[in-house]
Amino acid sequence: MKGTPPAAGTTRFRLTLEYDGRPFMGWQRQAHGPSVQQTIETAIHEISSETAIVQAAGRTDAGVHASAMTAHVDIAKPFAPFRLMEAINGRLKMAAAPVSVLDAAIAPPGFHARFSCIGRSYAYRLLCRRAPLTHQSGLVWRRPRPLDVAAMHEAAAHLVGQHDFTTFRHIHCQAASPIKTLDRLDVCADDRADGQHIRIEAEARSFLHHQVRSMVGVLVLVGEGKWQAAEVKAALEARNRARLGLNAPPDGLWFLGAFYPPPVG
Amino acid sequence: MKGTPPAAGTTRFRLTLEYDGRPFMGWQRQAHGPSVQQTIETAIHEISSETAIVQAAGRTDAGVHASAMTAHVDIAKPFAPFRLMEAINGRLKMAAAPVSVLDAAIAPPGFHARFSCIGRSYAYRLLCRRAPLTHQSGLVWRRPRPLDVAAMHEAAAHLVGQHDFTTFRHIHCQAASPIKTLDRLDVCADDRADGQHIRIEAEARSFLHHQVRSMVGVLVLVGEGKWQAAEVKAALEARNRARLGLNAPPDGLWFLGAFYPPPVG
Repeated sequence: MKGTPPAAGTTRFRLTLEYDGRPFMGWQRQAHGPSVQQTIETAIHEISSETAIVQAAGRTDAGVHASAMTAHVDIAKPFAPFRLMEAINGRLKMAAAPVSVLDAAIAPPGFHARFSCIGRSYAYRLLCRRAPLTHQSGLVWRRPRPLDVAAMHEAAAHLVGQHDFTTFRHIHCQAASPIKTLDRLDVCADDRADGQHIRIEAEARSFLHHQVRSMVGVLVLVGEGKWQAAEVKAALEARNRARLGLNAPPDGLWFLGAFYPPPVG
Repeated sequence: MKGTPPAAGTTRFRLTLEYDGRPFMGWQRQAHGPSVQQTIETAIHEISSETAIVQAAGRTDAGVHASAMTAHVDIAKPFAPFRLMEAINGRLKMAAAPVSVLDAAIAPPGFHARFSCIGRSYAYRLLCRRAPLTHQSGLVWRRPRPLDVAAMHEAAAHLVGQHDFTTFRHIHCQAASPIKTLDRLDVCADDRADGQHIRIEAEARSFLHHQVRSMVGVLVLVGEGKWQAAEVKAALEARNRARLGLNAPPDGLWFLGAFYPPPVG
């Protein structure tokens, strides 16, 4: 297993985090702006005087949200997990940072939030309506007209399975290989008084950089009637980023959860 | 019917509005801060050069939201309803105001958003969990522990029907009578990964000032096991504001919709 064990004299805690990505440059610590990682590391420094590194299952981009991100951190100062959660949340609240620790536990032996992770799920939320957004601004992607959800769901089936996802990969993606196995890509819709709510859920062991947003982009083209499902298949098979019709903005993207093997024993 | 007809040479439009109450002092125009009413009136002035008054079905308090508020306005400059909606939304967007026109139509003869209204519905949203809120901050009321929803629903039944709601009325309420008929007060819950979501829906011809928040307050006391259902009944029958155990904050309150008689014809 990759990843380092906790340093001597520290305890590894597993944290479940919720965050609103709007004010952040993304998960990862950046020189030029606030990050979720730095926000939590600062809170931990304030309660422990330790310079701990927080590792997450997924390094979300600027403006991307998490409803349950798994992370870990090694801390020398003794804390009961509940007290650690309360202390970090207290500091985050004082900083008025929209980041919250939903759960804290002592990590099982060998646990690494990123390298032990065997599955990740995302949701992409769209709201189709003419009127601009109010309280949902930055939390969903607004499209002005209703989308053909049945056509989107049919097109999504072409992307499920093991493929070379070069077309759906950001040019700066650092993954060693463009081949990924997409386990699930579902499109469902719900017509409510405030518009047509569409939710696209994606699940895989891991994703390429911008993969979910790129897949959502072409599905929206299908939903708008601009592409046929067969063109999604052709774009995938072209293995050419230039064939991507549309990349969705970060607004609607939510990291839903990370999955780990059950404890041995 | 109360309310004035449109002034000669104007057209009365019926608007459906969504707004995020967080930045506003409430619906009604105020000397000391921004209001939803003033925000829309300013947008209308910018597109028509007219000083029009926008009347709403409900004058929500500071921090209270609307998912579908009905309002009307009389405008002399000719507009197709769709164009009016687009023009107001364009101005609201430029002002970065979290207010949106979901629909616009020419009002039926005699229509008055407030005085023609025969029913109003509200939802109050609670999220029960230990962790502070992130993207839902100001949009739901967080309670640290799960609530007993069955007990709340049972207690709510004591408030349904025609009663003197003096206990559930703000001391500055301007209604002529404290007697109101509550048609519906339902409590339902949904356990999700981010906590226990509780939704309380209330429906009546009209409500007293703070009535929904006051009813929610005592239902939460019941949900926490601090009050029995019979104490809600006793507090109602006392007709005494001092007997109100708890008033809920505006955060979780949403104006859901206004109902009008079907057009005669």
